[in-house]
Amino acid sequence: MVGIVMGSDSDLTVMKGAADILDKLGIPYEVVISSAHRLPEKTAEYARTAKDRGIQVIIAGAGMAAHLPGVIASLTTLPVIGVPIKSGALEGVDALYAIVQMPPGIPVATVGINGAKNAGILAAQIIGLSNDEIQQKLAEYKKEMAQSVEKKAEKLKKLGIEGYLNSRN
Amino acid sequence: MVGIVMGSDSDLTVMKGAADILDKLGIPYEVVISSAHRLPEKTAEYARTAKDRGIQVIIAGAGMAAHLPGVIASLTTLPVIGVPIKSGALEGVDALYAIVQMPPGIPVATVGINGAKNAGILAAQIIGLSNDEIQQKLAEYKKEMAQSVEKKAEKLKKLGIEGYLNSRN
Amino acid sequence: MVGIVMGSDSDLTVMKGAADILDKLGIPYEVVISSAHRLPEKTAEYARTAKDRGIQVIIAGAGMAAHLPGVIASLTTLPVIGVPIKSGALEGVDALYAIVQMPPGIPVATVGINGAKNAGILAAQIIGLSNDEIQQKLAEYKKEMAQSVEKKAEKLKKLGIEGYLNSRN
Amino acid sequence: MVGIVMGSDSDLTVMKGAADILDKLGIPYEVVISSAHRLPEKTAEYARTAKDRGIQVIIAGAGMAAHLPGVIASLTTLPVIGVPIKSGALEGVDALYAIVQMPPGIPVATVGINGAKNAGILAAQIIGLSNDEIQQKLAEYKKEMAQSVEKKAEKLKKLGIEGYLNSRN
Amino acid sequence: MVGIVMGSDSDLTVMKGAADILDKLGIPYEVVISSAHRLPEKTAEYARTAKDRGIQVIIAGAGMAAHLPGVIASLTTLPVIGVPIKSGALEGVDALYAIVQMPPGIPVATVGINGAKNAGILAAQIIGLSNDEIQQKLAEYKKEMAQSVEKKAEKLKKLGIEGYLNSRN
Amino acid sequence: MVGIVMGSDSDLTVMKGAADILDKLGIPYEVVISSAHRLPEKTAEYARTAKDRGIQVIIAGAGMAAHLPGVIASLTTLPVIGVPIKSGALEGVDALYAIVQMPPGIPVATVGINGAKNAGILAAQIIGLSNDEIQQKLAEYKKEMAQSVEKKAEKLKKLGIEGYLNSRN
Amino acid sequence: MVGIVMGSDSDLTVMKGAADILDKLGIPYEVVISSAHRLPEKTAEYARTAKDRGIQVIIAGAGMAAHLPGVIASLTTLPVIGVPIKSGALEGVDALYAIVQMPPGIPVATVGINGAKNAGILAAQIIGLSNDEIQQKLAEYKKEMAQSVEKKAEKLKKLGIEGYLNSRN
Amino acid sequence: MVGIVMGSDSDLTVMKGAADILDKLGIPYEVVISSAHRLPEKTAEYARTAKDRGIQVIIAGAGMAAHLPGVIASLTTLPVIGVPIKSGALEGVDALYAIVQMPPGIPVATVGINGAKNAGILAAQIIGLSNDEIQQKLAEYKKEMAQSVEKKAEKLKKLGIEGYLNSRN
Repeated sequence: MVGIVMGSDSDLTVMKGAADILDKLGIPYEVVISSAHRLPEKTAEYARTAKDRGIQVIIAGAGMAAHLPGVIASLTTLPVIGVPIKSGALEGVDALYAIVQMPPGIPVATVGINGAKNAGILAAQIIGLSNDEIQQKLAEYKKEMAQSVEKKAEKLKKLGIEGYLNSRN
Repeated sequence: MVGIVMGSDSDLTVMKGAADILDKLGIPYEVVISSAHRLPEKTAEYARTAKDRGIQVIIAGAGMAAHLPGVIASLTTLPVIGVPIKSGALEGVDALYAIVQMPPGIPVATVGINGAKNAGILAAQIIGLSNDEIQQKLAEYKKEMAQSVEKKAEKLKKLGIEGYLNSRN
Repeated sequence: MVGIVMGSDSDLTVMKGAADILDKLGIPYEVVISSAHRLPEKTAEYARTAKDRGIQVIIAGAGMAAHLPGVIASLTTLPVIGVPIKSGALEGVDALYAIVQMPPGIPVATVGINGAKNAGILAAQIIGLSNDEIQQKLAEYKKEMAQSVEKKAEKLKKLGIEGYLNSRN
Repeated sequence: MVGIVMGSDSDLTVMKGAADILDKLGIPYEVVISSAHRLPEKTAEYARTAKDRGIQVIIAGAGMAAHLPGVIASLTTLPVIGVPIKSGALEGVDALYAIVQMPPGIPVATVGINGAKNAGILAAQIIGLSNDEIQQKLAEYKKEMAQSVEKKAEKLKKLGIEGYLNSRN
Repeated sequence: MVGIVMGSDSDLTVMKGAADILDKLGIPYEVVISSAHRLPEKTAEYARTAKDRGIQVIIAGAGMAAHLPGVIASLTTLPVIGVPIKSGALEGVDALYAIVQMPPGIPVATVGINGAKNAGILAAQIIGLSNDEIQQKLAEYKKEMAQSVEKKAEKLKKLGIEGYLNSRN
Repeated sequence: MVGIVMGSDSDLTVMKGAADILDKLGIPYEVVISSAHRLPEKTAEYARTAKDRGIQVIIAGAGMAAHLPGVIASLTTLPVIGVPIKSGALEGVDALYAIVQMPPGIPVATVGINGAKNAGILAAQIIGLSNDEIQQKLAEYKKEMAQSVEKKAEKLKKLGIEGYLNSRN
Repeated sequence: MVGIVMGSDSDLTVMKGAADILDKLGIPYEVVISSAHRLPEKTAEYARTAKDRGIQVIIAGAGMAAHLPGVIASLTTLPVIGVPIKSGALEGVDALYAIVQMPPGIPVATVGINGAKNAGILAAQIIGLSNDEIQQKLAEYKKEMAQSVEKKAEKLKKLGIEGYLNSRN
Repeated sequence: MVGIVMGSDSDLTVMKGAADILDKLGIPYEVVISSAHRLPEKTAEYARTAKDRGIQVIIAGAGMAAHLPGVIASLTTLPVIGVPIKSGALEGVDALYAIVQMPPGIPVATVGINGAKNAGILAAQIIGLSNDEIQQKLAEYKKEMAQSVEKKAEKLKKLGIEGYLNSRN
């Protein structure tokens, strides 16, 4: 249901974050490397055919002059989520600007720099609109997150700062 | 189906861009002013009840230390689209960072600074996943945009630069 | 008297700086983990009840789209001190902007990135306004700082640059 | 009770925002021009004697390489609130950095660029800790703000976007 | 010989700078509007066929998330010159980063923000490598520039600052 | 004694600030337009011969990729003061970086963006080291500045904020 | 045919990227160290004589206040490609601005920070305009790049994310 | 003749660069630690008495909200050279802005981030104006720099890139 595309295999470690959370939420996905600049035609083909192949949301990650999400968004009416990848001297600010500042008419739903996990959750929220099971899992995930923070809060209350920090070493 | 929320009525001129495109695409929406900082409880209430009131996507616009989209996203599993508003001395960079850099677990689908129109289109793309009529309208909108650029391209070909620029005055 | 709140236990190493200086100045405090995004209701509860539980100043630290200090400030009339935490690709500039650029009506007293120690001193200065003992300790602390720099100045005068640098290794 | 200091009379239009809100909250203040760079000795004198003259909080505004708040903070144990003023080619980012990034030991409670109103509210919150009347007024002010937003929200509900925008012209 | 492409007719006033200098240097060119995002297929077609239509250098201008130059560069082996256009809240920094930070393998020869004139001169320098007449004209243009500055220098020497400034009014 | 050089006559309005203060302090100067890029040889000649022509300090102002101060500094052992001029889309940040970030071995004494007046004062401070009259005038100028601020401070004390602001209109 | 110039031997590791790709494409080049600031006359000589010595394109790399590309461009009508080198506290942003923001009349074809490889390809594209063999090699290089990405894409398809990442260790 | 002042002993490693070049050029100096914020009175005393103690130029280095150079400049008519130190999350951009953006009337001659060596050379250039021996040494130093680059240039010519890089390991 979700297509995860990235411009280079060097983005894979970051983009894995999207796949992991989709796994956890039980949402099928495909992972594809397809550079907007080195494989422009394959990328265009991918974007144009995504909907007919059953893809509902595309997550596209790229670094530096990150054109991949925008190029895909220009060729489909599916929602496209862009993940700016931290790389190079500008450390992802270039990618953020190159993804989020799309001109009127062609939106890319941008998440934070290296925010692949959030891209996966956003994809799930979108798909969850017409899928009660995913909706349910998202609600559970939100609770889990809350409980995890609460557990840490209680641990801190019990151990104090020094104790807490020591327990992590 | 879409909730458009903004932190201040000074954001209304920008956020109107989202309403206009939703009008054009035939998608019903509500427009609400509800500051994350001045009306925190009402904002929380809005976010918590949105889904049950039939809202599918929330578009939230805010400027400066723009917390509204993130605060709403923390209280719902609906997809939340954030619009950073240009205002103050930092001209929207503060709002962009305060919206897009959400921590893992709570995504906000961020569009460009003052990108309310794109927020509306993104909302339509999301709703269109389970609504063929909207899907259809989005495809038509994409064609219209292309035709509008093509018309300008032809006009430029015919009139040349000077002629084109003169025709605009 | 002072509430130290942070959004994640990964902020603890930095926020310990506030606790340490409060210890030194003899000011009681509580340390709490309570994410604005993952535990929004608990955070709101914390802010709303802080004053009645005897808290006088709240120090809130958060990274990235750092909403915690502002969210707390929206729900209390106590002074709230915000500590932007350095983390992620933007290294704390996002947190600084998301904390300091609060809209009119809801101030957050912002210190420098990772400036938890200064947050603690600021809290002491505020409480010291109606507490002569703390006032006294702050004056002594200021003297100690001056003496510590003077001692280094004298050491440098005696040893010269090379000698000083060698003495540190 | 509050000292409002600014480096130049060109800052007065902005800094008036602090005075106005203090007026509204019934807090007495003095307004002083005293440049850290052009009147260093008078500035030092002001900072050193502030406490004995009954000042409880100092609000200091300055633009560009804004040293005034830090210079004052180095000479008093009173809480100092810094207001970065937007001016010059860097439009206040220089002032923000020069105020907020104070070294460990000498905090300045920084508000947003041109955020004089928030500086005034913050001063009131600090003084309100030992003054029930001010505390009360702050709570009322918070309510007023909420009501003002609610009024606008209702007006928008009634008039719609076009109607609302027209009513403002 | 030179193709001038821009993403929107709002870029025309800036891009005219390239056409004007090419006119002056006697280099034929075509001017085309073709958005990377709104007309992706036409843009791809343009890039793929440029060389066969006799184009030697492509000048592409775009603002915000400026993908046009990079998208064209990905589909041709002709040198592509990118002109970041100042527009939107980020005033061209976004366009600069989105054009200059191309990944290894696909260069775009980037000029300054709104630097269309320099793009035209650069195109002439490239074509001039195998065209003595253009080479000659570039050398003359360089001399003209020098003479123009020298004339101003002499005028300033004669009139002094006040006189010079008055002579401009 | 002072050479004021600028890259373009469009910098003249800003650079006049240096001439004006030198006039006031009674220091002779020459004003020259000489572009590092359009008149490289004349600029080099100017730098190489400056010392022999009796110039003691060179003030060089330039905007954008501001090479003029550094180019001059590379060809003389005289102190060179650089004035970054605000111009173009980056509003002087480019000029600031291009002037201040000189590599080891070739310093440029950089003042603030558009800080031509300060460049003049700095030149006077340098020349004043071996000229008691100028030294004296600088001390008087410092006093005048202080008195001017004091006068404003007193006026504000007398008139109050409203009165002061009204008196300026 | 290509001159590769750099301001310091510390730039050599980065600039080697240009030489490597020129080697691969069979284009002869010379590599020269010649600082704009430490060897201004030699640098000027180099730029002035480059064309007569048969150089067609100059690639100039420099860091910090990177004047080298612009200084060379001011003295030749050959196309000059600028490579901003990442170094110092500003990590190449200073070099980018100091190279790309050239004033009207003197263009530098700027590539990304540390983008020496792209500088080499751009030089080849320029020379390839009148050299079919190089043109051919560029087309092949483009294909190779595409195939390399495709191979990775297939490998990812076969191995999945975990398998792919493991295969790299 | 030269006073080298720094705000903290953590700046010593950087500021040593100024001392080293002054040693090389035979210029006497004193090195002092004196924090603008922790030792405001001693710093003021130092600035006020510097001239009478025979100091001709003051080099002041500081990081973060770097007030030291400006505070000193406000209390003396000697030329003050400011060295922004790289430290903290903003890596010296804060210090650069806090030093270079001084208001009209109080200049600080700013060098690049961590540019202590250039500060030393600049001090020598200033003192050299009335000291032929230092003038002479500066001219020799400039020649040495040129020769050092030339030697590297020749080595590169002889060894080629690979050979050169290998020779460094």
